[in-house]
Amino acid sequence: MTLSYDSENLREALAVQVLGGGRIEAQVHEGWDVFGIPHGGYLAALAGAAVLESSGKPDLFSITVHYLRKAKLGPLQFSVESVGGSRRFTTVTATARQQDEVVLSVMASLGDRTAFEGTTWRARPRWDPRVASLTSPSGSNDGPGFAGPAMAHRTGLRLDTTTLSFAAGDRGEAAEIRATMENDDGHPLAALIACDATPPAVWNALGAGGWVPTVELTAHLRARPVPGPLTIVANTAHVSGGFLEEDAVVHDVEGRLVAQSRQLARWSSAS
Amino acid sequence: MTLSYDSENLREALAVQVLGGGRIEAQVHEGWDVFGIPHGGYLAALAGAAVLESSGKPDLFSITVHYLRKAKLGPLQFSVESVGGSRRFTTVTATARQQDEVVLSVMASLGDRTAFEGTTWRARPRWDPRVASLTSPSGSNDGPGFAGPAMAHRTGLRLDTTTLSFAAGDRGEAAEIRATMENDDGHPLAALIACDATPPAVWNALGAGGWVPTVELTAHLRARPVPGPLTIVANTAHVSGGFLEEDAVVHDVEGRLVAQSRQLARWSSAS
Repeated sequence: MTLSYDSENLREALAVQVLGGGRIEAQVHEGWDVFGIPHGGYLAALAGAAVLESSGKPDLFSITVHYLRKAKLGPLQFSVESVGGSRRFTTVTATARQQDEVVLSVMASLGDRTAFEGTTWRARPRWDPRVASLTSPSGSNDGPGFAGPAMAHRTGLRLDTTTLSFAAGDRGEAAEIRATMENDDGHPLAALIACDATPPAVWNALGAGGWVPTVELTAHLRARPVPGPLTIVANTAHVSGGFLEEDAVVHDVEGRLVAQSRQLARWSSAS
Repeated sequence: MTLSYDSENLREALAVQVLGGGRIEAQVHEGWDVFGIPHGGYLAALAGAAVLESSGKPDLFSITVHYLRKAKLGPLQFSVESVGGSRRFTTVTATARQQDEVVLSVMASLGDRTAFEGTTWRARPRWDPRVASLTSPSGSNDGPGFAGPAMAHRTGLRLDTTTLSFAAGDRGEAAEIRATMENDDGHPLAALIACDATPPAVWNALGAGGWVPTVELTAHLRARPVPGPLTIVANTAHVSGGFLEEDAVVHDVEGRLVAQSRQLARWSSAS
C-alpha cells in the first residue's frame, strides 16, 4: 500500500452510503491512522460526510465530535437524527457504532452557506507558507525530518521546519506547529482532517510525551476551500488538570479561512 | 426587581428539578436577559445544570449548545439521553423545549475531575484584573460607562476600561474585552455564564453593530472555581462570510483556568 497523497483516495476514504431511515454506512479505511489508531480528524470528516449526506444540506457550519472509544478499521454505522432548527440552520445529532458499541457522538449545524455574507476581518496576518521552509514526514527537505504516521503521508502533510523542535527532543518553544496539507480537489471535508493533522502542538513546549487523546473536537467550517494546499496553524495555550486544548486554524491556498477548530484532549504528564 | 449580583439569586436561577425518565425541568428566570432575550451563557449554564443533575456525575468536562430558537421566560423542559462512554467519560445529549419547540440542542461530556491530574502550563501570563481599571454597567468608576443589559447587572460584570472603545463609538481596536464577574459561592456553572458575559468583543474592532446571535457555543470546564470573582478575556480573531468566532478564557480569583469557550456567531455587517 502506497501511503502518499492521492485526491481519489481521499474521496474514496470519505465516501458514505445512505441506507435509509437516518442510517449511513461509512468505512474506516486503511492508512488513515496514527500508528494503528484511526485518525481523529479523519473520523470527524467521516462524521461530516454522514450528516451532510443524511440531511441533504450543502454545507456544514459546525460539527462537534466526542471520541468515546478507539475506532477500528472497517464498517462504521452512523445513525443520524434531526433535532430541529430554523429557516437557515438545521441541527442534527448522530452516533457512529462499530460492533454495536458507540465510537463517536456527533452534533452538527448545517445549511446553505450562500445564504450568508459579510465583512472579512482578521486580528492578525495569516501564516504564509510560501515564506516557510517545509519538510515532509520522510525528512526530505532542508529541515530536520520527522517520522510521521501513515496519516501524515496520506494527507501530504509538510511541517514548517521552525516548528519542529519536538522532533529534535527539544522543549520550551511556543506550543505551535504550522503545516500544509494537499487538497487538489478542494474537498470541503479535507479541512476537517486538517484540524487534527499536525503532531500535538504541546510537544514543542513540553516535550513529545506520547499520546494526546482527543475527548471532544468542535470545528467551524467557514468557507468552501478552493483546490490546492491547505495551511494549518495549530497551537495550545493552556495545559492544566490532566487536560489541554488544541486550536487549529485552516486556510485555503487563496488565503480564505476555511475551518477553525478546538479540541479538548488529555495530557497527563510532560515526561 | 433589583438587578444586582446576589449569590442566592444565581443559585435559584440555575436550580433544576428532576422529573424522572431523563426529564428535567428548569425555569428561565427574569432578569437573566440581554435587552429582553434570555442570555446565551445563562441558557448554557441551565443546560449544564440539567445534564449534571440527570447524569449524577460531579463534573462537566465539555458542553456544546446549539441555539435553535430564542428562549422565553418560564419553564424549559430538558430531555436528557445517555449516549455512551468509557470508565472516565460519559457523553449525553439533551434537548430543551418550550411549548414543544426545540430551543437548545446539547451534547456534554461528564465525569469526575478528581480522577485526573497533570502539569500546569500556559503560553502567556493571564490577565490580572488587580492592575486594571474596572467599570460597572452604570459607569460608576473612573472609566467611561457602558449601558449594560440586565444580565450585566445580575452577574456583577465589570469591564476593563481600556477595552471599552465600542462604548465611545470607536472602532479599529483589538477585538478583545476583559471583565470580571462575581461568584461569591464558587458556583461551578457561573463559569459557563462568564463564557458569554461580555459585550461582543468584535464591537471594539468593527463597531457596535447590533446583535451577534450565537449559533453554537462549546465550553471546556477545566477546574472547579474557588469562591470569588471570575476574570474573563473574550476575543475574536476571524470575521468572514457572515460569521465570526468569539473565544473566552475564564479564570478564578486564584488564577486557575476554570473555563475556555468558543462560539460561532452570526455577523452580517460592520454597519
